[in-house]
Amino acid sequence: MRIITVSREFGSGGREIGKRLADIMGMDYYDREILSAISEKTKLDEHYIENTLNDGLFFHFPLTFGRTFGYMPDETSTSSLLAQQHRIIREIAEKGRDFIIVGRSADVILKEFAPFNVFVYADQADKIRRCRERGEHVNATDKEIIRQLKRIDRSRSECHALVSGEKWGEKSGYHLCVNTSGTDIRSITPLVAEFARQYFVKNK
Amino acid sequence: MRIITVSREFGSGGREIGKRLADIMGMDYYDREILSAISEKTKLDEHYIENTLNDGLFFHFPLTFGRTFGYMPDETSTSSLLAQQHRIIREIAEKGRDFIIVGRSADVILKEFAPFNVFVYADQADKIRRCRERGEHVNATDKEIIRQLKRIDRSRSECHALVSGEKWGEKSGYHLCVNTSGTDIRSITPLVAEFARQYFVKNK
Repeated sequence: MRIITVSREFGSGGREIGKRLADIMGMDYYDREILSAISEKTKLDEHYIENTLNDGLFFHFPLTFGRTFGYMPDETSTSSLLAQQHRIIREIAEKGRDFIIVGRSADVILKEFAPFNVFVYADQADKIRRCRERGEHVNATDKEIIRQLKRIDRSRSECHALVSGEKWGEKSGYHLCVNTSGTDIRSITPLVAEFARQYFVKNK
Repeated sequence: MRIITVSREFGSGGREIGKRLADIMGMDYYDREILSAISEKTKLDEHYIENTLNDGLFFHFPLTFGRTFGYMPDETSTSSLLAQQHRIIREIAEKGRDFIIVGRSADVILKEFAPFNVFVYADQADKIRRCRERGEHVNATDKEIIRQLKRIDRSRSECHALVSGEKWGEKSGYHLCVNTSGTDIRSITPLVAEFARQYFVKNK
């Protein structure tokens, strides 16, 4: 079974690379599908789940966590949702089909399956531009978008640290780190696919 | 003019990637040639120059630097050699020919020429193996090789900070970061070349 994980800075075009890779390699693709699966299991709203995971841990752990009061996570907490997410990602791998998964610390959750791990990043100006092009931030100032970029990346980093104890975005954890600034995603994705193929030849 | 800079962890195979890239792209190649040029200008021994640059700054700045005594670098000091190196790298660029350069903070020294910047790294076990294969460390223990790897990388990092004020090996400074562990350098170098070509198409 071949697995490719795509980790990415918010606004870097990582999701687009993931989708294109799935087309090129003919592999299953998982991204928001994971949120839908969590929603189905927990009966929680998909947007609630997304926002909770995107807000990171800071806003969801009680301030007294680990100090005076005992801490009992309920099923709506970030930690409980991360545990659900973990189980669902393992279930996908246990199907035994080749697949690509974007985000969600899948690189560490699936470590024993020796996935090919890509990290996608970009210069800040390009990330701002890409956010605007998505049409989600029509009236936002650059400063507001930057705050949003940082908040989501910080949350990814926090969740990653909780799942793995490793540092999100630290290049040693990935086989290839691709800066999408100054390049064209359509042109470079086939090269990322070829890097992955070379890796799978050596790591069968 | 197209310039590719290859920065690399010691023992990662970055120099081999640089040489192969030069063959594939039909570009001039600079690495130790820089040391020879410094040697010619300063009349200092090439090995002295190499060792001084590899030892980093710590051992060469007097302890009183910036404090009690005035500091006057002589022409054998690390900082003076770095300045020479800087001039020589600029002179190469001013020839106007396409080239590849390995190490020496060329990515920042040549910033205005919009080079394609690659960073090559590897897992520690592979770096140790590669050092042994080079035959330079036949009787060294793993621990001794690790100390050597760290010392040289720390020196590269220190020199880079002095030249650029930026962090060596921090992925945001590079267009592509390639982990050579679990891959075959001969197979992946043509892909790095293709990444560079795509970059030069967009950044003429």
